Amino acid sequence: MSLLTIGSVAFDALETPYGKTDKIIGGSCTYIALSAGFFLPKVNVVAVVGDDFPQEYMDTLKSRGINLDGLQIKKGEKSFFWAGKYHNNMNSRDTLVTELNVLADFKPVIPASYQDCDYLMLGNLTPQVQIEAIQGLNKRPKLVVMDTMNFWMDVAMDDLKRVLTMVDVLCINDEEARQLSDQYSLRTAAKLIMAMGPKTLIIKKGEHGALLFQGDRMFYCPALPLEDVFDPTGAGDTFVGGFIGYLAKTDDISFENMRRAIVHGSAMASFCVEKFGTERLFEITEADLAGRVNEFRELASF
Amino acid sequence: MSLLTIGSVAFDALETPYGKTDKIIGGSCTYIALSAGFFLPKVNVVAVVGDDFPQEYMDTLKSRGINLDGLQIKKGEKSFFWAGKYHNNMNSRDTLVTELNVLADFKPVIPASYQDCDYLMLGNLTPQVQIEAIQGLNKRPKLVVMDTMNFWMDVAMDDLKRVLTMVDVLCINDEEARQLSDQYSLRTAAKLIMAMGPKTLIIKKGEHGALLFQGDRMFYCPALPLEDVFDPTGAGDTFVGGFIGYLAKTDDISFENMRRAIVHGSAMASFCVEKFGTERLFEITEADLAGRVNEFRELASF
Repeated sequence: MSLLTIGSVAFDALETPYGKTDKIIGGSCTYIALSAGFFLPKVNVVAVVGDDFPQEYMDTLKSRGINLDGLQIKKGEKSFFWAGKYHNNMNSRDTLVTELNVLADFKPVIPASYQDCDYLMLGNLTPQVQIEAIQGLNKRPKLVVMDTMNFWMDVAMDDLKRVLTMVDVLCINDEEARQLSDQYSLRTAAKLIMAMGPKTLIIKKGEHGALLFQGDRMFYCPALPLEDVFDPTGAGDTFVGGFIGYLAKTDDISFENMRRAIVHGSAMASFCVEKFGTERLFEITEADLAGRVNEFRELASF
Repeated sequence: MSLLTIGSVAFDALETPYGKTDKIIGGSCTYIALSAGFFLPKVNVVAVVGDDFPQEYMDTLKSRGINLDGLQIKKGEKSFFWAGKYHNNMNSRDTLVTELNVLADFKPVIPASYQDCDYLMLGNLTPQVQIEAIQGLNKRPKLVVMDTMNFWMDVAMDDLKRVLTMVDVLCINDEEARQLSDQYSLRTAAKLIMAMGPKTLIIKKGEHGALLFQGDRMFYCPALPLEDVFDPTGAGDTFVGGFIGYLAKTDDISFENMRRAIVHGSAMASFCVEKFGTERLFEITEADLAGRVNEFRELASF
């Protein structure tokens, strides 16, 4: 099934206790597309970069089945750039630089060839841009999944609440779920958030795994305890990319299949953090993924 | 199989956002025995109280199959007393009062009738008292499980390390595992801690569940997301009491059975937090527990 994802394609500069990088390829859309692309022959991307974005990076993405027909390249402008430094426990980080650049006035344009979209993944972006992406499609996709972050709750809550009424699945972290619902209990938070629109809610808890809610049903996927987390950048996007990639591949949006999709997303994320940036996502094989999914099965079974 | 537990039998005064109590029955041994007693016709207790401890409380415990032949009652002395106040998120608390009283010079005495002990549960106490309890048994039990806390790591690390060489299973929380191993990664911490003695390690993560480690094997049991946590007091002791009670009932200490024991302990703990103190533990039925274990199965299966 065809998958369209919209989000940022950008430069990241990362520093963790294991080392630091210069500007490397990053952005929510990059991680989502690489992760979802593991499951699908093609992933359609809508995003924007400046003309500083190297052709080499675009060629690399294309070689993984990522369709960049919807990638706008703004002449004379610079790509979105984020720099961050992780603390020793890897659970907290400081943002050192955020340069919106081309993202500041991004208007998503959906190419005609993308209009058959069955699965739509809205990466973390201004809620207004997420709305425009949905409205840019002639037919409503079978499943719309969105990511967001606490920043939009602070500065664009009305727009955010409007997108929430337009999507099927919301994917946020525990802190964001608490902020959005003003409830500490994640179970109570989930009820309130699902009443805002999305019938299904994923709450990411980092090293503590992820929760999936739909009506009265719950699924708790643990995170695989790892000896070393090398670089957590992109883990959340890799997770949700694997989730929607697996759903699109199997074309089954039942709750039972969403459980398996969560596990596949978690497995992809567990690889992502093993090296800097997107590096590890280029190495994994189908056998690696099958082995990792078995580790999750072994981890959770009783 | 016969189970012996040693720990505190005490008074607690609790305050949570839902209300507060006067002095009520508390102590690690009380929660462990009540939880383990759910699985066994009898639980043998070694503990100490002052003569302020009401006969009514002792009668209540006895009515649940808890054998108090090993409960020392110190004339003219007062029982251990702890008072605490939980913050709004229930994940942190302030200790308002700690009066050691009879616990200050507790010398465990194991009654002759307890010497057939197959399963030994060492509740959180001075490591020296835990050692004396093990040494007070003529034959080594089939399984020795111990709880401890960060306080003993601060003030009695040498004694604590000595107990660790004498036990089979250590049960601590994530913060304690990190302190004991000086490692942030729980998987690395587990390796180092198991090298200190216990072949099996349980790391409790509160609302994030519990991890079980043995050699290279891992099991992750999620905590059931609850709408309300009324009072978390005793949840950890109820958890480990359910764990060892289930093992003693089934008399199977394989890793596979320990997985099921962790789930039964987690189920017992999920009941415990639904009311103040030990109250909920007196209400649950076998059908309640079976239903809750099924909820865990549903929560974790994919």
